[in-house]
Amino acid sequence: MSVPSLPTAPFAERPGRLMAAETAEQPAVLRRILDEAAPRIFATAQAIAAKSPRFVLLTARGTSDNAALYAKYLLEIQLGLPCGLTSMSTTTAYGARPSLRDVLVVTVSQSGGSPDLVASTRAAREAGALTLAVTNNPDSPLAAVSEHHIDVLAGPERALPATKTYTASLLCLYLLVQGLQSRDGTATAAGLPDLAAGILARQEEVRALAARYRFAERMVITSRGYGYPTAKEAALKLMETSYIPALSYSGADLLHGPLAMVDNISPVIAVVTSGRGGEALQPVLDRLRGRGADLFVVGPASQVARASSGFAVPTESVPEELQPVLDILPLQLLAYEVTLARGQDPDAPRALAKVTETR
Amino acid sequence: MSVPSLPTAPFAERPGRLMAAETAEQPAVLRRILDEAAPRIFATAQAIAAKSPRFVLLTARGTSDNAALYAKYLLEIQLGLPCGLTSMSTTTAYGARPSLRDVLVVTVSQSGGSPDLVASTRAAREAGALTLAVTNNPDSPLAAVSEHHIDVLAGPERALPATKTYTASLLCLYLLVQGLQSRDGTATAAGLPDLAAGILARQEEVRALAARYRFAERMVITSRGYGYPTAKEAALKLMETSYIPALSYSGADLLHGPLAMVDNISPVIAVVTSGRGGEALQPVLDRLRGRGADLFVVGPASQVARASSGFAVPTESVPEELQPVLDILPLQLLAYEVTLARGQDPDAPRALAKVTETR
Repeated sequence: MSVPSLPTAPFAERPGRLMAAETAEQPAVLRRILDEAAPRIFATAQAIAAKSPRFVLLTARGTSDNAALYAKYLLEIQLGLPCGLTSMSTTTAYGARPSLRDVLVVTVSQSGGSPDLVASTRAAREAGALTLAVTNNPDSPLAAVSEHHIDVLAGPERALPATKTYTASLLCLYLLVQGLQSRDGTATAAGLPDLAAGILARQEEVRALAARYRFAERMVITSRGYGYPTAKEAALKLMETSYIPALSYSGADLLHGPLAMVDNISPVIAVVTSGRGGEALQPVLDRLRGRGADLFVVGPASQVARASSGFAVPTESVPEELQPVLDILPLQLLAYEVTLARGQDPDAPRALAKVTETR
Repeated sequence: MSVPSLPTAPFAERPGRLMAAETAEQPAVLRRILDEAAPRIFATAQAIAAKSPRFVLLTARGTSDNAALYAKYLLEIQLGLPCGLTSMSTTTAYGARPSLRDVLVVTVSQSGGSPDLVASTRAAREAGALTLAVTNNPDSPLAAVSEHHIDVLAGPERALPATKTYTASLLCLYLLVQGLQSRDGTATAAGLPDLAAGILARQEEVRALAARYRFAERMVITSRGYGYPTAKEAALKLMETSYIPALSYSGADLLHGPLAMVDNISPVIAVVTSGRGGEALQPVLDRLRGRGADLFVVGPASQVARASSGFAVPTESVPEELQPVLDILPLQLLAYEVTLARGQDPDAPRALAKVTETR
């Protein structure tokens, strides 16, 4: 006797199908960047290095802002260049015209279309900055107003929560910073596509973990060093898709105040990189464990084993500065699965437009 | 027949008495800064200006980080100096030794005692930076390792949620940035103490407003430009005291994602300055109103009148760049009153130590 199958919605109508498809493309996008974009990124980096910038300003919003923060860590740690994130309204609302001689301004934007980013970058160039746009659209106004442009080659991104453009931007920014040091970063990054595919194949594991957050009213996400942009991006992803208020803090900032919110009130996700950032986070993890917090770790298996639960990321062969490309993947899956578990559609967060026209 | 009075706890045991007392001291602290600290701040500013720094890095955590962000807006808008906020772990965890020639490093810390701030400032000085500490403790290790020091003269702060050291830091940073332009800022700021006293006298008004948040599960706080540090500080204050997850976004960032969380799920507090930042926020306010959001405005009466509710701040005689000293006051009161309404003690957030020893 055959068991009749339940009727299923056609693929095109499944909630979250866009986000799922674009999340799954990430190994291919990473491979494309290593194969096709890397030589151009290296050439761009060399042209920038020839100008010997002394300071870097990074300009972005939303998910791209988290990619920019990753670049800030890389630039400060590997190049010793002081960096700042742009407060855009100082230019666009207040008309500030800073003196930007010797300053490299890097603007990161998936669409390259937000008018305030274009205006801010144009103003920076007029003020003497060397300008570089990192976008997923070489035909965008942002690419046009910038002296240099890096195409992150992620292909069209239609889901409102950005996934593949984030990891693509991370890898391109990594290659850029290696190029600024006359290094070819492709060999070090060569293992990422396969490792990413291996992580994304573990969706069932994430689905089981997502159950613990189905009824969560808030979440705290923490990390330190190279993992901190991952914590911020995971919080944004969870909020955009599931509407769970997810608060991200560097481990040090968490101890300076918001720890009051933890305990039994809020589960904590810790992004533990394998390296100095992860080591610096250990006292925070000890304190959270001591308080009986519900602690979910994304990181090496040894760290996951000491937490309430977690997702082990195989990063043995990956230097700490490249782990953010992998660590965000289970958190993208988590945002997706938690959102489905709550009966919502990860593709259709209310009120978001893909190109946000802030001015 | 006399009605027997209910037994009352002695004053010393009233919940929130420390925070209430320190909040109330703010007009006196502001006056003390204008009377006593201003000449020294001017002299310090002149000494710094003589070195013509070309880039500013601001280093702080928690409430002081919000004061540092205020200084970033002032420096970028009024002086055209590119600024960055320090990612401290790049120095303390990764040992980065950036080249800081021509860089002014400003470290803001109430206690001046956090080891990572001291280590980071020492490293900056060794790397060639001009260093300035802004603290409430001239005998602190941070003041000792910095070339210049500004004492914010707030007096001992014992409540864990910082109040008077925040507004004191803002005013001192304002006077500093005026001094960097060879301006005496005291005349422009002269009205602040009385205006602050007038706002703090309206506690009953805030108490009535607090009722709407007694059962709130989350809050969103937004602003733009000079008001943005106020939004961040209000969110931190609400979280530290009431544990309500309060998410702060610049108006532009709110449109780039987290707006999905608003609607009927989350009340919104908007800090609307009277000036270009407030003007740039108008499209965000229109969008929030159009979506039927519960919108509480702190700002000019005309803006409050168009919101669901609000607190009118009398800023007619105050330039936009000084309004943050006043706008935070009703939000400090709100955090206090909401916390009491929820049956908690604003003085005793769980797990916080006043000097946080992050390393």
